[in-house]
Order: sequence, then structure tokens, then C-alpha cells
Amino acid sequence: MKPDLGAATRGRILYGGDYNPEQWPEETWQEDVRLMRAAGVNSVTLGVFSWAKLEPRPGEREFGWLDRLMDLMHDNGIGVVLATPTASPPPWMGHLHPDTLPVTEDGRTEWWGGRQHFSHSSDTYRRYAAAITEDLAARYGGHPALTMWHINNEYCTYDWSEGAAARFRVWLRAKYGTLDALNEAWGTAFWSQGYGDWAEIHTPRQAHYLKNPGQVLDFKRFTSDMLLECYVAERDIVRRATPHLPVTTNFMPLWVGQDAWRWAEEEDVVSVDLYPDPRDPLGAQNGALVQDMTRSQARGPWMLMEQAAGPVNWRGVNHPKPRGLNRLWSLQAVARGADAVCYFQWRQSRQGAEKFHSGMVSHAGEEGRTYQEVKQLGAELAAIAPEVTGRHTPNDIAVLHDWHAWWAGAQDGRLSNRVDHPDLLRAWHRALWEAHLTTDFAHPEHDLSAYRLVVVPQAYALTDAAIENLLAYVRRGGTLVSGFLTGVADEDDRVRAGGMDARLRELFGIRTLHEWWPLDAGEHVECDGFRGTLWSEEIDKTEDAEARARYKGGELDGLPAVLRSGRAWYLSTLPEPAAMRDLLAGIAAEAGVRPVLDALPEGVEAVRRGELLFVLNHGRESVTVEVPGGHRDLLTGAALKDELTLGRYGAAVLKAEPDAQAEAVLAP
Amino acid sequence: MKPDLGAATRGRILYGGDYNPEQWPEETWQEDVRLMRAAGVNSVTLGVFSWAKLEPRPGEREFGWLDRLMDLMHDNGIGVVLATPTASPPPWMGHLHPDTLPVTEDGRTEWWGGRQHFSHSSDTYRRYAAAITEDLAARYGGHPALTMWHINNEYCTYDWSEGAAARFRVWLRAKYGTLDALNEAWGTAFWSQGYGDWAEIHTPRQAHYLKNPGQVLDFKRFTSDMLLECYVAERDIVRRATPHLPVTTNFMPLWVGQDAWRWAEEEDVVSVDLYPDPRDPLGAQNGALVQDMTRSQARGPWMLMEQAAGPVNWRGVNHPKPRGLNRLWSLQAVARGADAVCYFQWRQSRQGAEKFHSGMVSHAGEEGRTYQEVKQLGAELAAIAPEVTGRHTPNDIAVLHDWHAWWAGAQDGRLSNRVDHPDLLRAWHRALWEAHLTTDFAHPEHDLSAYRLVVVPQAYALTDAAIENLLAYVRRGGTLVSGFLTGVADEDDRVRAGGMDARLRELFGIRTLHEWWPLDAGEHVECDGFRGTLWSEEIDKTEDAEARARYKGGELDGLPAVLRSGRAWYLSTLPEPAAMRDLLAGIAAEAGVRPVLDALPEGVEAVRRGELLFVLNHGRESVTVEVPGGHRDLLTGAALKDELTLGRYGAAVLKAEPDAQAEAVLAP
Amino acid sequence: MKPDLGAATRGRILYGGDYNPEQWPEETWQEDVRLMRAAGVNSVTLGVFSWAKLEPRPGEREFGWLDRLMDLMHDNGIGVVLATPTASPPPWMGHLHPDTLPVTEDGRTEWWGGRQHFSHSSDTYRRYAAAITEDLAARYGGHPALTMWHINNEYCTYDWSEGAAARFRVWLRAKYGTLDALNEAWGTAFWSQGYGDWAEIHTPRQAHYLKNPGQVLDFKRFTSDMLLECYVAERDIVRRATPHLPVTTNFMPLWVGQDAWRWAEEEDVVSVDLYPDPRDPLGAQNGALVQDMTRSQARGPWMLMEQAAGPVNWRGVNHPKPRGLNRLWSLQAVARGADAVCYFQWRQSRQGAEKFHSGMVSHAGEEGRTYQEVKQLGAELAAIAPEVTGRHTPNDIAVLHDWHAWWAGAQDGRLSNRVDHPDLLRAWHRALWEAHLTTDFAHPEHDLSAYRLVVVPQAYALTDAAIENLLAYVRRGGTLVSGFLTGVADEDDRVRAGGMDARLRELFGIRTLHEWWPLDAGEHVECDGFRGTLWSEEIDKTEDAEARARYKGGELDGLPAVLRSGRAWYLSTLPEPAAMRDLLAGIAAEAGVRPVLDALPEGVEAVRRGELLFVLNHGRESVTVEVPGGHRDLLTGAALKDELTLGRYGAAVLKAEPDAQAEAVLAP
Repeated sequence: MKPDLGAATRGRILYGGDYNPEQWPEETWQEDVRLMRAAGVNSVTLGVFSWAKLEPRPGEREFGWLDRLMDLMHDNGIGVVLATPTASPPPWMGHLHPDTLPVTEDGRTEWWGGRQHFSHSSDTYRRYAAAITEDLAARYGGHPALTMWHINNEYCTYDWSEGAAARFRVWLRAKYGTLDALNEAWGTAFWSQGYGDWAEIHTPRQAHYLKNPGQVLDFKRFTSDMLLECYVAERDIVRRATPHLPVTTNFMPLWVGQDAWRWAEEEDVVSVDLYPDPRDPLGAQNGALVQDMTRSQARGPWMLMEQAAGPVNWRGVNHPKPRGLNRLWSLQAVARGADAVCYFQWRQSRQGAEKFHSGMVSHAGEEGRTYQEVKQLGAELAAIAPEVTGRHTPNDIAVLHDWHAWWAGAQDGRLSNRVDHPDLLRAWHRALWEAHLTTDFAHPEHDLSAYRLVVVPQAYALTDAAIENLLAYVRRGGTLVSGFLTGVADEDDRVRAGGMDARLRELFGIRTLHEWWPLDAGEHVECDGFRGTLWSEEIDKTEDAEARARYKGGELDGLPAVLRSGRAWYLSTLPEPAAMRDLLAGIAAEAGVRPVLDALPEGVEAVRRGELLFVLNHGRESVTVEVPGGHRDLLTGAALKDELTLGRYGAAVLKAEPDAQAEAVLAP
Repeated sequence: MKPDLGAATRGRILYGGDYNPEQWPEETWQEDVRLMRAAGVNSVTLGVFSWAKLEPRPGEREFGWLDRLMDLMHDNGIGVVLATPTASPPPWMGHLHPDTLPVTEDGRTEWWGGRQHFSHSSDTYRRYAAAITEDLAARYGGHPALTMWHINNEYCTYDWSEGAAARFRVWLRAKYGTLDALNEAWGTAFWSQGYGDWAEIHTPRQAHYLKNPGQVLDFKRFTSDMLLECYVAERDIVRRATPHLPVTTNFMPLWVGQDAWRWAEEEDVVSVDLYPDPRDPLGAQNGALVQDMTRSQARGPWMLMEQAAGPVNWRGVNHPKPRGLNRLWSLQAVARGADAVCYFQWRQSRQGAEKFHSGMVSHAGEEGRTYQEVKQLGAELAAIAPEVTGRHTPNDIAVLHDWHAWWAGAQDGRLSNRVDHPDLLRAWHRALWEAHLTTDFAHPEHDLSAYRLVVVPQAYALTDAAIENLLAYVRRGGTLVSGFLTGVADEDDRVRAGGMDARLRELFGIRTLHEWWPLDAGEHVECDGFRGTLWSEEIDKTEDAEARARYKGGELDGLPAVLRSGRAWYLSTLPEPAAMRDLLAGIAAEAGVRPVLDALPEGVEAVRRGELLFVLNHGRESVTVEVPGGHRDLLTGAALKDELTLGRYGAAVLKAEPDAQAEAVLAP
Repeated sequence: MKPDLGAATRGRILYGGDYNPEQWPEETWQEDVRLMRAAGVNSVTLGVFSWAKLEPRPGEREFGWLDRLMDLMHDNGIGVVLATPTASPPPWMGHLHPDTLPVTEDGRTEWWGGRQHFSHSSDTYRRYAAAITEDLAARYGGHPALTMWHINNEYCTYDWSEGAAARFRVWLRAKYGTLDALNEAWGTAFWSQGYGDWAEIHTPRQAHYLKNPGQVLDFKRFTSDMLLECYVAERDIVRRATPHLPVTTNFMPLWVGQDAWRWAEEEDVVSVDLYPDPRDPLGAQNGALVQDMTRSQARGPWMLMEQAAGPVNWRGVNHPKPRGLNRLWSLQAVARGADAVCYFQWRQSRQGAEKFHSGMVSHAGEEGRTYQEVKQLGAELAAIAPEVTGRHTPNDIAVLHDWHAWWAGAQDGRLSNRVDHPDLLRAWHRALWEAHLTTDFAHPEHDLSAYRLVVVPQAYALTDAAIENLLAYVRRGGTLVSGFLTGVADEDDRVRAGGMDARLRELFGIRTLHEWWPLDAGEHVECDGFRGTLWSEEIDKTEDAEARARYKGGELDGLPAVLRSGRAWYLSTLPEPAAMRDLLAGIAAEAGVRPVLDALPEGVEAVRRGELLFVLNHGRESVTVEVPGGHRDLLTGAALKDELTLGRYGAAVLKAEPDAQAEAVLAP
């Protein structure tokens, strides 16, 4: 049996962050440890960007500084997540081995001087990466501070180089076997693109006009697979050395390039980097979405590897977190299954490209508001940890999401460049979140039988297996709601006859899908009771199906906007948020799914984890929330009876205590 | 005598489109033929993108599939326009011969994987193109299905490669003879650009700041000429094989890169691709403009080679055609001289980069609205064909347009990047179209004596010959109306003394042109009775000239906005649309030009072709149109007396029938 | 003692411009001279872009045409500023020596065909440049027409080529001595960027993500230094030949790439190119700013090398100058210290990339309004010259500005990309300008003791020496006002502890700077009595400091927006213009600084130079201005008593004449 996050948490919530002490004199390390201990930090990630320090010249090793740090952490009771440093090769590598540098779509080299300037396809890079990983595993595998391995960092590089082309050909041969099969899958009969020799195939580089969509789609799959190969190679090295310790790498929420379902299978611990904009009115919902997705990938507790205690530095304008927001969003992650609450990074850098990205200790230092809040949160997490860690709470609703469908549907030459897969995920998740319905995520081929309701924001491309899975799900009593542009293509991005798979059309009661009518920015269509945006469709329904809402006026007057056929629903437009919320809430209720709490005020979120009920006020005003029965708030210790008052950005972690009497305590 | 479109139409309107059956199993071909016949399709274009299929490896030939298709078409009475496949070389060509790939201005290669990845200057490419053309001509020249040749497709590639530079030097030597002449024409004395050796000249590649305008202008001319060389080489091959069959290639409306006046001289049939946006309120007018231009290039019937039955897929948001619009716009093309109404493409692709570009048979198939409307239109075109084909109707008004003037005037470093030559063409044509005045297009050096009115939206650069032509036209009684930025430069883009040619200044009554005053976006100038946009000028008029409108207020207060000197008019600003329409309508009336019909409602277009009167309702509401006298509508067979009612997007094709009595039939 | 501008002016105001007669036949030269003399032109700049003409093939020389021009100028009493032609190498140079061409950040070559296509780091380029300069100096050093040398033109090229990388390494070795010092300064410990060999360092080329800020900062310094090396090399050549003649090169106002403080030290005459947009309501103020900066660099009279008599051609939309504006802005330059008023260029080009950039003689020629106004101005400058030239008038206020601080603060990865150093300079200078307070500019390490008030719009990075200089200035009784983002970093862009230097925090009364709160576009913060934009801060003040304005509402409610501690003021936001003006006017008054005149109407500027008072009406309406006492207007000769009426764009140059009686003359 493989180790999981529990092997590292051992009943605690991991609290800490990336620690890059090589930026500081060793005197500062002592100060760091003092502040960490005061803040309840129990875990740091070392070595993420230390390659040049560990291997200053090819083949050399300098481990002394890291030895001292590992010991220092251990002496102070702080566990170490040790990273392989392979996300940022030292300057000597690109200089001596230009084949290790990635090349852009239009043939430009990405030089060193930043980070992630490695070609996933370079044998040289992979060889050096394996060697340093071997040596780290050998040296620190037995160190008592070591609790987990972190491979690389935010895998995300595309590469169109000659080296990548060579590996792409190998990958394609393995997938297709014959050129005939490849030509068929890519539809090369169109535009005279038939390949007669494997050597003719390159990465999809700059072209005069639209590129072959099959080639582009496979290149995205290939990229995800190559990065995964890099990950697996390093993981296997550390796993051999320390089979008892879990291994992870940090996903980026909704980054386009990784098939995270596939990747999660190769991880012991699923971890994620999460940076909602503090200014985004939907920041809390966006966070919830990523947390739901990550928990679903983990199928259990997960790790919040990176968040920011204050501002980031990569938006155009970067806002700090107002007082209380860091605590609130951290507790939200715990509510949704996180057993680790970590940051990039411990101490804000004074130099380098991220010196305006916040740290747990900001430029203002110990007296700064940021550290003071970090310190308070550390104490609270320690307090609730025993009741929280290890708990996993599945939900009744699944949102379907698949990277391959996204990749296929996001190409150039579509009917509307306004259709964005993540935006649709957000719109559907938001509707459920605002209806106080908690959700999991699932892949279209997953077993869905445990769910009462499955929603499909958009699944442009679906395999036959996925389609049969959906049909079986409804056949066995499940309720399915799908948005437009679902089932349009197969896994090769081949449009299915009729513009949408015939089985799905039958399921939803669509006789003929005459034309798609995408909507312009600012345009809407009137429907019975609401406005639709982004998209509309010219559909003839079957006789049995019921048009639950119709278009009013315009070219589509009288045609179905929302179509129902038994337990299968189809939305041919995107209703505005309030209508979307009400529609999905109604369908959920009919499917027997209830909100976490009734009568929750707007902006208040309630989430159950194990036996606990988290209540989070995302608003800036105090609110009173009805929570029937007696509870104790683990954060304040206060007992509550039937209701709870939360201040601005306030949170409560409630445990049922049937005999509790209310006490006059305001949760912060 | 060379063959013309009549050789292919033989009294029919050609109806059909690009047919790319290599995308489909042969079973589908049978289904295609059945649907074609049902829809009245009598012409298909084969082989446009078939090079890889015909020549899967260098020098190999695979003709069997095409043999079967040619026979199948012939057996079903469908003529074939056979294309040379040279717009999209097979992957092996770029792979084996990198010199066949174009290079961008900043040195990046355009790879295969899309289309049009050929260097017009590559000897290798030209040799392969000639060889496949030879073999196609030899094999199919005698096939009974063959009715016309289509060379390449939408010639449009620029190329800054070394190969192109070599040909550019040859082209320049032929044009200039000596370096002194080149240095003089390009004005290289400025900025130390004098060339001392032909070898120093390259294509105008990425520079630190503004490039030499003469070099850029000649590079555009060179590009048009190189593409034309490619066309002519292939044309000559097929012409030798089948001197009795016409040859064409499809222009793109207002594409910047082809001097279509020059190209049209080399074509037997002028054909065009036309894709107005169905959402554009001026879509019908934009279509009319291109049709007028194409007819003028053809000097007779022309071919609508490509249009879309539904949406295209290359706009940001691509809208389908509402019910009736495809028919209406097709009839508009016939009214303006088309004897062929064709589409890209017959059956919508299931794969490849254009699978969301509509076809005559859409993804929805036979039951889809799109095919049903295509079928109806096929019957209607067959019904009117005998009264239509071969007819050519010249107009009393000519709009001047010249690609060289556009190229010269569109460079960087001008006073306003808001001045766009096609926009000005559209603004002036729109004014005439809204006044129900039908127009031809002409080149500034054409014989204009047949026209009562000539308008010049903008002719930034004019040769001495063109200027003398305009002067003579007015001298002999013609009425000339010119917009600003006309006659500024000579053919080398050398500004004429005074900022505008002295002869033209004298013609229009301009004594001194002190300064150009371009207007910002959203800015306007008040004039007597209207607002001007885009441009204004600080002009002193001569004593004899009459200021028909003056600027009011601002820096130009009291100076002439509209200047008249005899039959010559000059507009120093761009009046807003309604004012522009009234101004040109008034000038036309004075010149003796009448609208096609009086009292036409807004949005209704009337066009005469031969003995027929086409009446087209571009609006979404029914309208009643006064049409004095008795007519029969060839579409419905209905007889009409003095008036006609047209439904939304309705059309009538009227033939005078003096004794007709009105019947109560609503034209669809 | 080195020669200065006085050596060339000899009591006159230099009037003229760039003269590029190689574009014209020699007949035109005679016409030019006639028009020059009529306009009072006494100085032309020859040869700026004549390299290809002077050296048509490598090593050849053609001086005859220039001999004739020098003689022609001399014969007509027109002095010559002779330029080295090194800003635009002939085509043969790039063709024969590709190493002379610059390369962009992403590896693309900048070809010839424009201008400035030289690599400052190329030995080949430098060798050719030195050779032509030697020969020019030898041939014309003794020519009686020669009055000054002009080196190159608008030095501004960046270069990322291999050649530049080689020089960059040399420059870095000289600066840092050891790689350890470089690694420390650049903070390469972050992101694994440690260099182990000098050869690994390249110019900061395209990277996958944010580049190392230290490397980018040093690359900007290196670029300024390399260009300066090029300048100095040519200067030294001409100086050896003509030690009695001054040497200059023309700065571009607020161009980012030159440390003009450093450059000015190497110039005998500081000259500038100045092109405010005639449409910009703040055009006059922007001009004043550049003039103040240039005068401060010159520490005496300076040269307006280039301005436009009408429109330029490099904006999107280029507006001409309304009647009177050229005169008004020219007099403004004289008021602020210019002893030379020159233009690009004498006669507007008919060909080439700048043919729509205006000239003193426009396309409209002698009759055109532009030349007529130029002629009038020439006479006026001649009239006032004796009372003006050589005078230098220092001011009581200094605005601090430093290119290194700008470079450091303008990098990617900052908290807000809306913070723009020049915009902040403009906002602060505008406030002072609108309060009729005249200013100098100074470097943060300059001796400030002569100023009563020093303002710091933004000095993101400050050396210790600069900080001590500011502290000493206040200690000795000076008043200091600083904007936000000052003193954040040291000269290596290393953030100082606390996010702002502790000495400065103490000076301004800032105890803790918790977080920066950048504001979005369109966002503002309410403060006592005004609105703040762009930026705000979460600050705890010390007990002694006084919050002169506080934030109202929002997250910063009650925190200090404007902080005062003795004579030191700190603005943590950017007040809206009127508030900014009133704030600075109040502080200035307290510091004993008075406006030039009291009760000046809005839009009227008053400037003292020597004994003269310039009064300039930048408005389009007539105004009456109170000018206590008797004066004579040197432009009109009119005597004035206590008040003055100025028409639209009117100007007066007043000399005190205590006994004058008012005459009824309206200054134009």
C-alpha cells in the first residue's frame, strides 16, 4: 500500500510554505525558525529552486548548506517536504547544452535567466535531472526531518523544438501504429496534409493559416504526457529510496496543459496552487471550484501547496488581502478537504523576480499585519486539526470535466472564440455554489452511480465510452443536465453526424440541430423568464421532449432554450446567473439533493466535512445564520443554539453538541 | 477567340461548389450525387486541395479515385471545374525542400500543417506545380465532365525569404535598369539608404524604425506579380491542353495583395469568393460592392466561386444565415451579373480546420434547414437562367479604384492610421447604393467616356496618365467627384509639389492646401448642414471655385469643406452617411443619372440586368414597392401591376409584361 | 576651458534646423537659401543621414556635394552644425558585416532599410564610424561655416546580439570584479540562477517567465553606457580637430534608455528634441517639463535641436499646429533657457519614411501658412536675442529624477503596471506649473542646498548616498515632499528592510508600512478633502508625525494619506490634480517660494529669464494679465502699465521700464 498525505500530517494540519533560505544569510535562518515556531509552522518545502546551489558546475555537489537546514528544521520540530530542483536548471546547462532549452511555436528559443527553461523532451535535461534526484534521495532519504517529496514545480512548458518533434513522432507511432491510422485520425485528406513518412511530422509550428486540429490536439496530449514522464521518472527514483514517504507535485488550477485526472493517478498526494484575486467578487467561489476539483482528483484529503498571504505579483494590478481574508480562504480549503495549508513563500524575497509576491513574513516583518494574521491562523488550525484531518466527505452532485474535451473544443476555427471552457465550468459551479449545493468533480468515464445529479457544463468531445456511461447513468435513475456544445465530436475531434452524437440527441429529445447561433459580446436572447447569453441553437425537439423554456422573438422564436426529456436536461443557451442558479436548484431538489443549510444569507457558505460544519461569511457585513440545533464552535470554543452571528469575513467550525446553550460570542 | 464563362454555362446558371470527396468513403459519394441532383447542382469543383492525394510521394501519381469521381459526375450530368492542387503542397515538399516554405517579415518560417505554405519564388515549388498540372491536363483534358480549369486557390502569400529576395532583385533590375533609377524612385537619399550594389537589396524585413516606403511599395507590386507568374505558368499548361475551355482563379474581395485589374486580364473567367457577415447591417451593400467590382473586372458575366450557405469559421463569432438570406444574397449576385452561384463547400467537413465552416449540406444533413434552402434555390436559379445568362448591363456611374494607390497610401508614417482605403470605398459605394444608384468600378487610367459620373473615394497616388485621363474626362463633359488624399503622390509615392498635383488642384479650385487636419476617433467637424468625420483640410480656394459647404467653428472656420469648380467636386472631409448619400444623389441627378426605381423603401435594392428587374428586400419586414407598369415575377410566375409586396428577405425577378394584371401573390 | 553654446550663438538665438539637401537637386538649394535668409535662419545641421552619400562604397569618400553646401551656407551667412552620419549606416555595411546589425530580445535581426540599424557593440561599426568622423573633422574642421558638431542622432538602440553579450560580460566584469559579487547583486540565489562562469551570462533574452531584475537593470545601464562610448569616441575625434568648437548630441525627452545626467557631463552643449502633441491639453506643460529638465542638465543655455513646425508622422493621428502655436511654444523654450530654436527639418521631404513629418517649408511651400509663421518668428527671435542669450536663471524648487530609479522601478512583476515614472513626473510638475511655480530638476545625489523646496515624484531605488543627501537637506532647513514608492530599493534593486528605507521612514514619520494597495484604473480612494488615485498604502505613523489627510472609508479608513513630520512630507496616494496643485502650492508658500506672478489666469504661464519676464497665453481666448509696474514688450515694442492683454496663443517678452505708460497695443 502506498503512503498518503496522512503519512505526513500524522493528525496535524500541515502549515507552512516554500522556504528558500539560500537567499538569506544563515543568521536570518535562526530568526526564521523563531518566527515559524511562534506561528505554529510545522512544515516547509525546501529546494524547489536550488539546483544551481546544489550543482554549481556540472556534476559537482554542494550539500552542506542543505544538511544544516535539514538539521535545523528537525531540531525545531518542523518537517521538510524536499523538492527536486528540476524546474529551473542552472545557467551552465543551457550554456553547455542548448538542446535543453525549449523553443516556441514560431521558432524562438526560451533562454535561461527566468525559470522553467527546460525542454521536457531533452535527453540531456532528463539525465541531469535524474542524477541530482538520485543524489538527493540517497543523501536525505533517511533524514528524520523528511516527510514528503515534491517533484519539480508547476509543470507547464510547451516545446516545439526539434527534440520535441523527435519524441512527438515516437509518441504518435505508439498511439497510431500506422500512418494510415494517423492520417485518418487527423483528417489529413482535407487541405492536402496526408503524411507519407513519419519523418514529415513535426510539432505544430507557425503556419500560414489554421493548423490541423488533430495534430494540435495530439500535441497537447503529448505535452501532458511528456511532462508526466519527467515527473514519473523522478518520482520512481525517490520512491525507490523512501517507499514509505508520499510524493507529490503541485498542479495549477485549471491550467490547460495537464490532464490532471491522469496525473493524479501517479501522485501519492494531490496538491494544488491556488491564487484567487482578492478583488474578484467571485474569488471565494473560484477557490471553492478548484478545491472541489482537487479533492475529487485526490479522492480524499489534499494539500494546498501554494497560496499567497498577501498580494501576488503577476497580475496587472496586484491587491493585498484585506484583514481576515487569508484566514477565511484558508479555512475554506480545510472545509473542502485540505489537510495542508501552505504558502509561497515563507519570507518575502528582497531580490529576484518575485520580490513583490507576498510571503508569510512580509517586507514589514514580524510587526506587519500579514505575519500577525499568519500567526493567529496557525493557532486555529492546530486547534481544529484533531477533528478534521483524514476526513473525506463525498457529495451528491458531480460536475463533469475533461481536459481532452477542453483541448479539442478550444481550438482556432470554431464558431465562437467567446466560448471558454473554464468560464463555463465557473458559471455552472457558481450556480450550484450560490444555491448552497456542494459538488464533486468527475471525469465523463468515471463511475457516476453514487451521484444523484450530474451536470455537464460543456463536454465538446466525448468518447463512445463516455456517452454510454452517461446514458447508463440516466437509465439507472440519475438526473443529467448538460450545456450546449456537448458531444459534438469524438476523441479525434471528428464531428459526429448531426453535429451532436445521435444517442445524446435522443437522450435530450433533440430531433434536428439545424444551426448553432453563437452570441456576440453584450448580446442576449430573451427566453421564458430569463435571458440567455453566449450561445443559442436552432433545434427541433422530438415530440416527447418538453421545452421547459423557449426563445422569445428573434430568429429562434418559439424554439426550445431549455429542453427536458425525462431525467435528462439540455440547455441550448447560458442563462444569466440568477436564472441558472434557480434552474439547477430546482432540478437538484427534484433529484433529492438539498442545500447544506436552508435559508443561508447571500455570501455565506456552509460546508460539511466529516462531523463538522464550516460556516464562512464571504461578505463584509455581519450576518446571522440559522443553524438548527446546538453546536460548539471549535475556533472560539463558544456554544451556539440555533443561530450564529459572523462578522465580516467571519468563520465558524461547528461540531454538533445537542445540549449546548448559546453564548454571546461573535465569531471573528 | 478565347473561351469565356458561356462555354461552361451553356445557358444555365452554374450551381454547386467545392467538392472534396477525398474526405469521405466512396459510399458517401453516391449519397452526395443523389442530394446534388435533387438540389439542381450542375457544377462541382474538384481537386482544390488534393495534391497529397494525387502525389503522395514525390513524382508518384494516384489518379484512380479522381477518375472514378470524374466519371461519376459525368454520369450524373454534373460538370467539373478541375482545380490544380497547388495551393497546398504535400508535407513531403517542405520536408524535402525547405526552400519551398515562405518566411515572414521577421524571419520566421511558415511550416506545413495548414495551407498556402508555398513560396511563390521557389523554383522547386514551381517545378513540382508545373509537373502535376501537366499530368492533370493530359489525363483529364479530354474528359467529358470537364468544363473549366481552376488554378490554385486564393493566391495570397507574402514571402520575405532569401529566395524571394533573389527574385525581387531580378524584378527590380527589370523595372529600373540601373541602381541610380532605383535610388531615385525609392528616395534613398533620405536616411542614408543609397544602394551601391544590387546584392545589397533584400525584401523589406524587420527594421528598427519605419521602412523605406518605395521598397515596401515595390515589394507589394512584386508579390502580386510573382503570384501572377505562378498563375500564368499553370494556366498556360492547361490552355495548351484544352484551348476551348476557360481558365480562372478565385479572387478574394478587396484582398490587399493582388492587383486584380491586372490579373483579370489573364483570366478567361473572373471569379470571386464573397463572405459578407450575416450580422453586418451593411452586409448586402458590401456584397453589392464586391459584385460591382468583380463584374467590372470581368466586363461581362462572372462567377461567384465561393460563398457560404451558413456560417464561416474565421471570424471571432460566426453567425449562421437566417432563413432566406442565402437565397436573397445569391439572387443579388445574379442581378449584378453572376452566371455561377457556388459555395465552399458541398458537404460540411467532419474533420480538419474548416469543419465549422458551413456546407450546402450541413452537419444536420438532408433534413437540415440549410440543405432544404439550397434545394429551393437550385430550382429557382434553373427557372430564371434562360432570361439571365450572358447578359451584361453597364452603368452610368464609375467608382475609381486602384491597388497601387491603395498600397502607396496604406503605409506606416502617414498622418492618420484611421484612413483605410477599403473603408472609404465602402463609404462612397454605400452612399450611391442607398441612393439606389448602380455603379461600375474602373481604374483611373481606363476610358471613362461612357460614364456620366465618376467618383474617386481616394486615389492617394496617381500617375500622370491617370491625372490627364481625369482632366480629359471632365473637359469632355463628365462630372467628377473626388475625396481627400487624392493625387497626393506619383507612382513612386513621391509627394507632388503643393501636397496635391497642381493640375488637380486647379481642376477642383484649390489654390493652397496648407495643412491636412486628420480627425481622431469620435471627433467630427461641423459643416454647413452636416458633420464631417475622419479628415479635414486647411484649404484656400481659388476665386472661381464655389464652397458648397464650409467648416463651421474650430480652426478651419469658414474654409471650404465641399468645393465645386464647374463639373469637378472635391470633398475635404467625409460627410456622415446620410449627407454623403444626399450629396452624391444630387450630383448624380445633375449629371443626368437616375435611380433604378423611384421611391424605393429603405433597405430595398433594385437592379437591372438585361431585360430583367431584380427587386430585393434586405429588411426583416414586409414592404410594398412601386414598380410602374405590368410585370411577371419569374420566381413565382405571378403577374404584377404597378406594385409589388415583398416579405422579409423577399426577392422578385421581374420581366416587363405590359398587359399583366396584378395577382395576389406575396413574393417570398 | 571647453567651448559652450555661446561659441556658436555669439549673441544670436540660433534659428534653423536639420537640412538634408541631398534629397533635392542643386537648383532647389538656391531656393532654400533665399527662403532661409528671408526667414532669418542662421544655422543649419548638415549630414545627419548622409553616410551612404559620403561613403557610397566601403572606404570611398564623396565630399564634393558637401563642400559646395558648406560654401553656400557660408556665403549666405548661415552657420553649419555638422553631424557625424553614424545613426544610419549605408546598406553595404549590414550586407558585408552582419555583425553590425542589432538583434531583438527574441532573436530577430533588425535589417537595414530604416535607420539606426547599428549595433553599438560592433567593433566593425565603431571602426567605420570613427573613420568617417576622422575624415569629416579633417576636411571641415577649418571651414568658416562650421559652428558646432552634432554626433549621431537620437541614440536609442538596444541590442541583444552575441556581440552585445560579449561586451556586456566585459562591462559586468569591470563593474563587479567577481562572479560572487554579481550573483549577490542580482540575487541569483532565487530561481537557481547562480552563475559559475562569466561565459554563461548573456543579454536578457526571451525567457519562459519573468527575467532576473538585476540582469535587466544592468542591461539598461550597459546600453546607456555603450551608446555613450560610441558618442565619446566620435566626440573625441572632432574635439581633437576643433577644440574651440562645441559638441552635442540630441536627447529625446524622457526616453528611457539614456542616463541623461551622465551624458550631459560629456556634452559641451545639451540639446533636445521636443515634440508635444498639439492636441494634448497639457502639451505646453509637457514642453515646460522637458525644457526644465534640459536646462538643469545643461546648467545654462541649451539647444532646442528638433521641434516640428507642423505635424509629426509617428503618432496614430498626427495633428498640425494651429496658427500661433509654433511661435508660442518656441518662445516658451527661449523663456526656459533655450538659445537655439531649431526644427526637424528645413524642407519637408517628398520621399522617404518621413515625408509627412512637417518642415519649416511645408509641401505647400513659400505660400503655405507654416513657412509664413516661421518667417515671422525668425524676425522676433532676432529682435529679442540681445536681451536673452547667455542668461541662466535658477529656481527655488527642484524636482528629483534619476534614470536608474526609473529603470529599477519599471520592471515586470511589480505590484501595479499602472505606475509609470514619467506619468508621475508629469503629475507633480503639472501641479507646480499650474501653481505658477517654476522649477529645476536635480539628481538625488546633487547638492540641493540652494533650493527651498525639493519634491520627489517617485524614486523607487535610492543609493545610501542619495538618502543621506536628502536627510542632510532637510536637516539643514530644506523642505522635502515625497511621493510613494520612494526609497523602496537600493541600487541593486534589493528591497530595503521594511519595504522602504528605515531612515526615510523615520524622516517621514512612518512606523510600519504594512501593505501597498495599488488602485485599479478608474478606482479612487476618498481622503479628507480630495480623492486619491493610482496608489494607496496601509501605514502606521509614528506618534510625532501628523496625518495631514486621512483615508476615509474602505480598508484604509483613518490611516494617513498625507503625512507630515516637520519639514518632511509624504504622500501615500496621488491626489487629483487640483488637490495636488493646492497641496504643493501651500507647502511652497510655507517654504517661502512665491509664484512668478500673482493672480495669473488659468492657462497663462509666466517665466523669468535674466531681466526679462515672458508671459505666455496657452489658451484660445484673450486674457488680461496683471503685471505690476511699467514694462516694454520686446516683441511689439509697446509700453505697458500694470496690465497686459494677450490674444489667443499670445506672448509678451517684458522688460521692466519703470516710467512706461500703457499704450493700446494687443500682443499677438
